[in-house]
Amino acid sequence: MAKIDLERLETLQKKMAEQNLAALVCRLPENVVYLTEYWPHHGFSFVVFPQTGKAQLFIPEVEEEYTSRDWADVTTFGWGLLKDGDLYENFRRLLNEARENLGLNGKRVAVEQSFEVTAPTYRAAEPVVPGKPWHDLIGSIFKSSQVVDINDFISAARSTKTAYEIEKLRTANEIAEMGINYAIKNLKPGLTEVQVGAMIEYKIRAEGPGYKGARLVRAFADVGAGPVGSTKGTLLIPSTTYTLQQGDFVMIELATDVDGYFSDLTYMAVVGDPSTRQKEVYNHLLEAQQAACRALRPGANFDEPDKAARKVLDTAGLGQYFVHITGHGVGHRYHEFIPFLMPGSKGKLEEGMVTSIEPGVYIEGFGGLRIEDNVVVGKDGPVFLSTPRKPW
Amino acid sequence: MAKIDLERLETLQKKMAEQNLAALVCRLPENVVYLTEYWPHHGFSFVVFPQTGKAQLFIPEVEEEYTSRDWADVTTFGWGLLKDGDLYENFRRLLNEARENLGLNGKRVAVEQSFEVTAPTYRAAEPVVPGKPWHDLIGSIFKSSQVVDINDFISAARSTKTAYEIEKLRTANEIAEMGINYAIKNLKPGLTEVQVGAMIEYKIRAEGPGYKGARLVRAFADVGAGPVGSTKGTLLIPSTTYTLQQGDFVMIELATDVDGYFSDLTYMAVVGDPSTRQKEVYNHLLEAQQAACRALRPGANFDEPDKAARKVLDTAGLGQYFVHITGHGVGHRYHEFIPFLMPGSKGKLEEGMVTSIEPGVYIEGFGGLRIEDNVVVGKDGPVFLSTPRKPW
Repeated sequence: MAKIDLERLETLQKKMAEQNLAALVCRLPENVVYLTEYWPHHGFSFVVFPQTGKAQLFIPEVEEEYTSRDWADVTTFGWGLLKDGDLYENFRRLLNEARENLGLNGKRVAVEQSFEVTAPTYRAAEPVVPGKPWHDLIGSIFKSSQVVDINDFISAARSTKTAYEIEKLRTANEIAEMGINYAIKNLKPGLTEVQVGAMIEYKIRAEGPGYKGARLVRAFADVGAGPVGSTKGTLLIPSTTYTLQQGDFVMIELATDVDGYFSDLTYMAVVGDPSTRQKEVYNHLLEAQQAACRALRPGANFDEPDKAARKVLDTAGLGQYFVHITGHGVGHRYHEFIPFLMPGSKGKLEEGMVTSIEPGVYIEGFGGLRIEDNVVVGKDGPVFLSTPRKPW
Repeated sequence: MAKIDLERLETLQKKMAEQNLAALVCRLPENVVYLTEYWPHHGFSFVVFPQTGKAQLFIPEVEEEYTSRDWADVTTFGWGLLKDGDLYENFRRLLNEARENLGLNGKRVAVEQSFEVTAPTYRAAEPVVPGKPWHDLIGSIFKSSQVVDINDFISAARSTKTAYEIEKLRTANEIAEMGINYAIKNLKPGLTEVQVGAMIEYKIRAEGPGYKGARLVRAFADVGAGPVGSTKGTLLIPSTTYTLQQGDFVMIELATDVDGYFSDLTYMAVVGDPSTRQKEVYNHLLEAQQAACRALRPGANFDEPDKAARKVLDTAGLGQYFVHITGHGVGHRYHEFIPFLMPGSKGKLEEGMVTSIEPGVYIEGFGGLRIEDNVVVGKDGPVFLSTPRKPW
């Protein structure tokens, strides 16, 4: 893998020039990773990314050794120990210096204003987000006429992935599948949903770090089993203490974050051998998923993969059970909003976009099924980052 | 356990009356739990909590069955499926209705403005926070002269826990210790730090749900081992693939969230038998920790437990290695800021406050040690929520 992803940074700086943006000022972990390849441990890092030259990364001293100076000039500050001063005074001083050093006086800078759905730092137990204290500080450093909302700009920029990013996302998917394959191999009656989820997370947390250079790995698995439990998976309802029975559907929904790169997968299994009807419905759904994947071509409308999946399910008499979207972007967040594959969705697929493809059917009294992979919009068609499924 | 925590709600409403607050409008998961006992799956729930009467909880339909109508009037809205309209239009309509139904026109309402450090929803892979879209919406529903920042008010209210809350926090600590005890019992040379952390999380995720009524349980363990790795624990540096050696110190830092109630623990262990010096330093540290706990009395200054711990470590010649605070509040967040036990900290301990007590020493070439329990400021002295440690 290239030492640094010049393609990502140079393309971004070109877009900044087109938008007359002198710098991006970011604190959200997903944007810190995007701009510097550093996934923060805590949420107190920030980046000033100039239109020309290197990213300026500001981080707590304790995290310094984990950053790469190939990607960014790194400035540390004290945080969290008795010797350290007030955090926001440190922020103020460093932002002031960056404004002067990068010549940002009077120029347009983009900051994180419009966001609500975010990605965590490694320390997912305690999300830290730029709130009013940060915005007040920004307001004291830059004139309000200089400051614009970064959201649309950076979301669009992040939506097409470079070869470097695609390789990282592939690694995240490979690590995710370690956990899923381990759990599916060990499925048996008597296990609870929470035990199956915990097995998946164990495998990923224990064996993910070190795999192809991965350092920080988190997994969030939820499992719904049986005719009722599996249908609760429509919108990620948490695992329960329900005990798996022979013949139960098991739906596994899994988010895996590897050094700030996400995988979002859903797998189906059956405890023991699937019945004829379970196979039939699964195979129809798989056919729909594969049809959606085949529709991932540069220049296609966002709604084409969705139409392709719905057509297959309609033909199979299952269309009414497919109640959600077909897919969404995946990258530095579990759910990115470009592309967004649903009926009526506007926009064109571009080469390098990465999306989930996840049709699902939820049939009362029978069960819920979803098949979700992460797929690149390749020049010549879909490129799977997770392993394409086989029919049952 | 009482069906609902009337003490919490009535005390809060009394304080709202004193501050002339007609309602609290909250979306942060930690405040939704505090006001309704419901820990959101996703981050799209919100609460309007009036000065008199019942909390009004607004949640996605898919979460309805998990809420309690003893605690709140529950109104659902569609979210996440094709049939559902625009989320913010739903928010707007529901907030408008709540303003009318509760007679909030022209009255003071407190909303979440100043926050940055937060607690996750159950879906910790994707924190959702009230950002600019929410604040713009609030600004269109209420006049700016009506709206005040909730932060100081609710942080103070949350800092003293009721008997109900203390029982819940005790359960969180008991579940946390299941994981820690399991890992310590199975420590052996050859395991990696990440494997030990994954074992802890496995046990808690697999066996926590169902224990004393617990439903949603998350764990976040980090492990630092050996003379270098253990010293990295000063500020929660993540587990690595370092392989445990006979005689290594092992520091376990663990956040556990049980239905929105946190435990924050640090345990020390040694692979095999501790050396004389390891025992000595551990026992000095434990003495310091116990001295700090004994200083937890209603009316004491926030800095007294810290002073007590430092005095013991100074006497033992270890004072210079104790470089961080002695403790912080714990409750609906991993780290709450009241009380905050450090040199110079202002404020008085009150009965019912719950705090971590976590002195630590980090000695280059030898190792890092921290002992952290969660303790209530009881009427007659400290009440441990985690198991008090024994000397080695």
